[in-house]
Amino acid sequence: MAGVLQVAVPDQDLAAPLTDAGADFTVWRIGHAPPQRPFDLLVLPYMMKADELRRLPAGVAAVLQSQTLGYDGVAERLPAGFVYCNAPGVHEASTAELAAGLIIADRRGLPGFGAAQLEGRWAHAPMPGLAGSRVLLLGAGGVGEQLRLRLEPFEADVVRVGRTARQDEHGPVHGLDELPALLPTADVVVVAVPLNAQTRGLVGDRFLGAMRDGALLVNVARGPVADTAALVAHTANGRLHAALDVTDPEPLPPDHPLWTCPNVVITPHVGGHVGAMAPRMRRVLREQISRLSTGRPPANVVIRT
Amino acid sequence: MAGVLQVAVPDQDLAAPLTDAGADFTVWRIGHAPPQRPFDLLVLPYMMKADELRRLPAGVAAVLQSQTLGYDGVAERLPAGFVYCNAPGVHEASTAELAAGLIIADRRGLPGFGAAQLEGRWAHAPMPGLAGSRVLLLGAGGVGEQLRLRLEPFEADVVRVGRTARQDEHGPVHGLDELPALLPTADVVVVAVPLNAQTRGLVGDRFLGAMRDGALLVNVARGPVADTAALVAHTANGRLHAALDVTDPEPLPPDHPLWTCPNVVITPHVGGHVGAMAPRMRRVLREQISRLSTGRPPANVVIRT
Repeated sequence: MAGVLQVAVPDQDLAAPLTDAGADFTVWRIGHAPPQRPFDLLVLPYMMKADELRRLPAGVAAVLQSQTLGYDGVAERLPAGFVYCNAPGVHEASTAELAAGLIIADRRGLPGFGAAQLEGRWAHAPMPGLAGSRVLLLGAGGVGEQLRLRLEPFEADVVRVGRTARQDEHGPVHGLDELPALLPTADVVVVAVPLNAQTRGLVGDRFLGAMRDGALLVNVARGPVADTAALVAHTANGRLHAALDVTDPEPLPPDHPLWTCPNVVITPHVGGHVGAMAPRMRRVLREQISRLSTGRPPANVVIRT
Repeated sequence: MAGVLQVAVPDQDLAAPLTDAGADFTVWRIGHAPPQRPFDLLVLPYMMKADELRRLPAGVAAVLQSQTLGYDGVAERLPAGFVYCNAPGVHEASTAELAAGLIIADRRGLPGFGAAQLEGRWAHAPMPGLAGSRVLLLGAGGVGEQLRLRLEPFEADVVRVGRTARQDEHGPVHGLDELPALLPTADVVVVAVPLNAQTRGLVGDRFLGAMRDGALLVNVARGPVADTAALVAHTANGRLHAALDVTDPEPLPPDHPLWTCPNVVITPHVGGHVGAMAPRMRRVLREQISRLSTGRPPANVVIRT
């Protein structure tokens, strides 16, 4: 490579603290005029719609760096000739933090106490709590592992489910095929799987129907992992609780019935969006710049087109 | 002691699973006719007002067993001739669980997202998060220690404050006298101290005034540890956030201004009130019954009158 590494970023804020990283930064987004010579590395905007990728000019950059962990829909939309990297280590901890908060909030009745507060009502009542309850954790990847770590001191019985049954240093990971037997045993079911052909619609009528009365479903994965109509059907009647950081569609339209189902908490896809995100993303960029500057292959390549 | 241990309980539910504990159980509450012979052990109702203690018939029982950890106001009200035991190990974990939930909920903006949900509004916005923030933990006793354990995996910087400065296996415990220097450094301040002469009104105007703009105060101790007027003054203008499981007075009257202060979450003293409470309380009772049946002194004596 000739000269200093050329890096395109979607906004100046991301690059500002990276002046010592050994690269030249340009603010560039899809829709801007293509650069005179290709970027060595093009950082995509956070939470960009996958459809936008279709508009990437051919040869605009050798390597694309996303700011997310999931990359559902990318391979189908990315024009030919790109190397696409995801961003592990940036969002797992914050997504697990949100999931833990949503679980405790539900198990301790915080939404109900919030409703009572609006009426100035001191509504003392016992709540189930998290300690001693069984949490089924679907997805033994980064988010699942970070959540396991966070739930452990709460004395919850965490049962892990992954694609295939296996054993690791923390005990058994059950296979997806064991779900029918496991779902009826759980007080809380957390979905933290990537969206793919195997997981799309996984949380449907049969899945939810197998859950215990009063159990909580938490989705911090991707909206289409769950069947929205089934979610409405199983919560509108009060049978199940749900805490959803992702929905299908997204954003959820103002008049959607899910907003008003009892014991359903909806947060607007903020699992990864915290103060700690920018420094973590810069750590990924520094590593990528260091690798590309020294002629090494990029890290975290998940798709080549 | 002659015969089987005579134990009075405030309700049958508590005693039902203790049939094998080696004691005779009677349901008895203050206001009932005194027993023909004194109870060996009298279990007081959960969340009983301390004033009720004045009505205990003299000699109704040799030993009183409370179902709470705190015993503020008891010594001043208890008639002469009683041995009073508190209940450590019953509420610490659940109070810490609630405190952790209140902290994450605030740092991830859950109350605000809840308000947006009521309007069917997808209000995506970044939130500070708990990871990387500094949590000042006032009270290095049971609740404080349980909370430290639970916050550790969230990558929060937990700074402990106790009555006196010391060092233990988890690092330094700062003294209460260091508060003026520590308060301005914290994103979250949790109060988990017993209510006594030293802590009454501790969280007053100066304390709150020393906290950072936007910081969160969590009170899971006792209402009078905080000055309610000062709480209103420092939250009504939006400067501080607060999460209060205890208030002064309690219950908080319907028209109290605290209910509607922005970024103030009030839960109705439910720190200890969870499903896991009853089995934990029974564990305390089993131990107490075992000790008294074998002529040993009662455990957890905190007051003798």
